[in-house]
Amino acid sequence: MSEVHAARRSRLRDRRPTAGNEAALVSRSFNVRYLTGCSAPGAVLLLGADGHDTLLSPSGTAVDTRADPLGGTDGLRRVVLPGGTADAAVAAAELAASRSVAALAVEEHDLTVARHRALASAAPGLRLIDLGRAVEQQRLVKDEEELAALRTAAEITDQALGELLESILVGRTERHLALELERRLMDHGADGPAFPTSVATGRNSGRTGHRPTDRRVEEGDFLTVRLGARYRGYRCQIGRTFVIGPAPADWQIELYELVFAAQRAGREALAPGVEYREVDRAARQPLEGAGYGELLETGTGHGVGLEIGEDPRLSPAAMGKLDACVPVTVEPGVHLPGRGGVRIGDTLVVRPQADGGPELLTITTKELLAL
Amino acid sequence: MSEVHAARRSRLRDRRPTAGNEAALVSRSFNVRYLTGCSAPGAVLLLGADGHDTLLSPSGTAVDTRADPLGGTDGLRRVVLPGGTADAAVAAAELAASRSVAALAVEEHDLTVARHRALASAAPGLRLIDLGRAVEQQRLVKDEEELAALRTAAEITDQALGELLESILVGRTERHLALELERRLMDHGADGPAFPTSVATGRNSGRTGHRPTDRRVEEGDFLTVRLGARYRGYRCQIGRTFVIGPAPADWQIELYELVFAAQRAGREALAPGVEYREVDRAARQPLEGAGYGELLETGTGHGVGLEIGEDPRLSPAAMGKLDACVPVTVEPGVHLPGRGGVRIGDTLVVRPQADGGPELLTITTKELLAL
Repeated sequence: MSEVHAARRSRLRDRRPTAGNEAALVSRSFNVRYLTGCSAPGAVLLLGADGHDTLLSPSGTAVDTRADPLGGTDGLRRVVLPGGTADAAVAAAELAASRSVAALAVEEHDLTVARHRALASAAPGLRLIDLGRAVEQQRLVKDEEELAALRTAAEITDQALGELLESILVGRTERHLALELERRLMDHGADGPAFPTSVATGRNSGRTGHRPTDRRVEEGDFLTVRLGARYRGYRCQIGRTFVIGPAPADWQIELYELVFAAQRAGREALAPGVEYREVDRAARQPLEGAGYGELLETGTGHGVGLEIGEDPRLSPAAMGKLDACVPVTVEPGVHLPGRGGVRIGDTLVVRPQADGGPELLTITTKELLAL
Repeated sequence: MSEVHAARRSRLRDRRPTAGNEAALVSRSFNVRYLTGCSAPGAVLLLGADGHDTLLSPSGTAVDTRADPLGGTDGLRRVVLPGGTADAAVAAAELAASRSVAALAVEEHDLTVARHRALASAAPGLRLIDLGRAVEQQRLVKDEEELAALRTAAEITDQALGELLESILVGRTERHLALELERRLMDHGADGPAFPTSVATGRNSGRTGHRPTDRRVEEGDFLTVRLGARYRGYRCQIGRTFVIGPAPADWQIELYELVFAAQRAGREALAPGVEYREVDRAARQPLEGAGYGELLETGTGHGVGLEIGEDPRLSPAAMGKLDACVPVTVEPGVHLPGRGGVRIGDTLVVRPQADGGPELLTITTKELLAL
């Protein structure tokens, strides 16, 4: 693994050619993990322009050796700071200054004003500039190791959901179903849930970010689930809606078919070079056409990776175009206040048509199942 | 509840008398929740010097109505921002400027450099100053509502742990025991775990922040658990160590008695006016005396509340003295590399001797149980 991280660091260097004596400090934990495999809380990465990189971590922090057995075979110097060191970023700034670095590029979207001030006073000679979101931009397009982790995360997610569908649901609470899904994610090898599992029944169904309650599943309910596994740090997401009982009502079938068509349109719009907002529009138009425009959220999907809500955003205001090897969710939904609703979401990887088009990672059926 | 939050806001105003046209912007989510009961992601609180306070939250965010049914009976104006608003803090700065506020005190330990810059450019007329950790300082001493939530969290935690001790443990993995503990926390009404549950067996036992593995419990193991419930946002923590099998080995009994004595010494040192480091020293000395000084962490306890690792820190470097109604953990431990170890931790509320001394919230027995 560690060669992978070395390659990512040199890619970052290529993306961002720096002056001779300029260094970069990566403090955002997801970015540090992406570039080093280290998920220790408080660890920071000092990228020397010379290619000498240093990982500084506070003592007593656990390093996720599954993500990266720290072999040290990757030209990365690892420094564990003495106990009681307040902030590894300050230690990194001092280290940079000691190497007579002139300018240090920091992640101003991550460092607080207070930390930034502490860095400046710890290394007065150092000129602090903004690294911006250079690492996040590189993280948009996933490499093979990342896609492999996402595929495994999706398999685990499908397995956990599939098992739940075979069990008795009527009479159980949203909370217990959510807990069981998370337990099954772990059983199948997830590090943990990618985000808090949402289970919504009856009038709660179809609500975004619904927190599971003690409401019990009843005959005739829509049941909406939204879950995902985290595997080696990578997070995927699936959303499905089912009907409880032998026969869905007409309004349920109509609403389901509408959301299904919208989600399919969004999926089919995924291709390299397509604007983010085009995908959103494709998924949004069928729902607006049916008069549900006011009920829709600002977005119909988003990137996934080390974070569950990464760039790109698939929304009307989003600027930019899809690339190959960018994993995104497509997850439109409609919630009718007081009645319930439908959400259908998948995680897919953008691929050119020549390679068969978008790669569907979450393969659980999207037929309307009556459970 | 909402009167409680209004009282907290006026207490904050009293603690920090401000000039006539100075306002304060609270952006740190725990602080916003403490002062308003609102746990919506991205919500911020604008405190007007005039006592007109405004809660601004992005649209589409869920508000935890269990924590505070937003009755609006508390003189708090609530504004839900239009969809697509990037940052409620920026909207709050614009609102402050529109009220011809001259200076806005912001939480520089929470705002990133990038957000701070966005505020400054959104409201150029506004002088941004530092609110510092005023809210965190107020949060140190808990009010009755907070202590009641912590007591319930501790009850739930004791129940979950007690049930686990009645079940068969040998042959089960650390992961599954951790999952079962978290499920039981939920069963007894927790919002969720206060932090990731740690279960450590055999040579893993006694390690701080150990992440549960697939190692199975064996006869003769030390079994260390560290868990806590989150209830209405408030988090408590318990740590216990057990022996698996009929008869503990001599080294296990000795080590347990040593850590138990250290933990008791720490608990007994808790009183208003006592320095943080005095409590740490009391818990640390018996372990250092036995020659384990090098194996100890930097701290032996910490405050708890809306966050699991709040001020105060009970460590050699910590400056300050305990007050009444400050809940803290006392949790020394020793881990012998390759063999295992013992951790014993409780959550207690500091009380004067006249009131019976420290209030023990986590009451599960600390006798060495052979399971």
